[in-house]
Amino acid sequence: MARKVKTRDRILQTALALFNEEGEAEVSTVEIAGVLEISPGNLYYHFKGKEAIIEALFDDFEEEIRQVLSAPIKRALSIEDNWIYIYIVFEEINDFRFFYNNLAGILERCPDLRPRFARLLRLKEETAASILAALEREGVIACSRAEREALAARFAAHLTFWLQYVGLAGAESDSRRTINKGVYAAMMMIAPYVPGDRAAFTELLDGYIASQK
Amino acid sequence: MARKVKTRDRILQTALALFNEEGEAEVSTVEIAGVLEISPGNLYYHFKGKEAIIEALFDDFEEEIRQVLSAPIKRALSIEDNWIYIYIVFEEINDFRFFYNNLAGILERCPDLRPRFARLLRLKEETAASILAALEREGVIACSRAEREALAARFAAHLTFWLQYVGLAGAESDSRRTINKGVYAAMMMIAPYVPGDRAAFTELLDGYIASQK
Repeated sequence: MARKVKTRDRILQTALALFNEEGEAEVSTVEIAGVLEISPGNLYYHFKGKEAIIEALFDDFEEEIRQVLSAPIKRALSIEDNWIYIYIVFEEINDFRFFYNNLAGILERCPDLRPRFARLLRLKEETAASILAALEREGVIACSRAEREALAARFAAHLTFWLQYVGLAGAESDSRRTINKGVYAAMMMIAPYVPGDRAAFTELLDGYIASQK
Repeated sequence: MARKVKTRDRILQTALALFNEEGEAEVSTVEIAGVLEISPGNLYYHFKGKEAIIEALFDDFEEEIRQVLSAPIKRALSIEDNWIYIYIVFEEINDFRFFYNNLAGILERCPDLRPRFARLLRLKEETAASILAALEREGVIACSRAEREALAARFAAHLTFWLQYVGLAGAESDSRRTINKGVYAAMMMIAPYVPGDRAAFTELLDGYIASQK
């Protein structure tokens, strides 16, 4: 039994690596079996087709990102803490980036994932809203309800599409730098709502991104 | 000769409608020929495969969006004028939305389009930067250089991904309302940089979106 669980995990790990590297549409189950040096029949024993692999990978992704997004944020954290938190969310998305790189194609073939993706987007918005509420309670930012709602939606969209945006622009190939730039861009969205000396806040951010080389 | 040009245009129009409706990956050249009631051979005479159709559609898209994005903005316009301008950009993207719905798949099969897409992103950023510069010259907004650059990139990403974000969230099916919400979200990005009474500016925007039902 332990042996079977292990093969199943190896299939998922290999599929994830190949999907991320080559794009999900370019990778067949036969290729995955070939890389693992198992027979297609053995792979089929574990997964009845590529859709089943994609759905199992989504299960993993959903569980991990839900854990990160549901981490309770009860008080306004330091810039460093916020930076690290957003970095972790981006890292999680980056680990499963093949989903985001061909969302339309994947949702076409695995329609069950559509409502689950929609729920993840809502969870991202809720998390952003709760962070903003914490920052507001502590007086770090000040904004109206309309501004807070717009900002939460913008955050969720930013988390969802930043990596794809950078990939399209062809501007950066190192994933660590890409993520740090994405965190900086997220923090810059908050900057204008810092009351009083927002220039000082922006300078702090500039210093922080400079130190992340 | 005129007859041939006409068939070519009809193929492109039909392909665009089918790609947008069903997703590009789901539509074959045989299906396009079938809808047009022409033989696959006749279609092949005009386009040597689906990639050639996709590239011709991109030529059209590129020309149209370049015209919109290159429209010179020399002075800060009224909220209404800015609203309409951003609406037009979104409408153009919506007309060719199949590109954005499966970008990874399309760029995989038509790698020539990759640098052209990257150039369009840069053009969006430049256009956003020139609008922001105009607004600043007229004293409508005030921001630092770092803020302006972050805002321009955010605008470009917003224009690129907003329609896809709403589609994923499954929140809205009417394209006119979706676009108006996207324009509102874009204007809300500018709001915090309006000096003095930014609440009044947000109220203006709230009034404007309410009138766009």
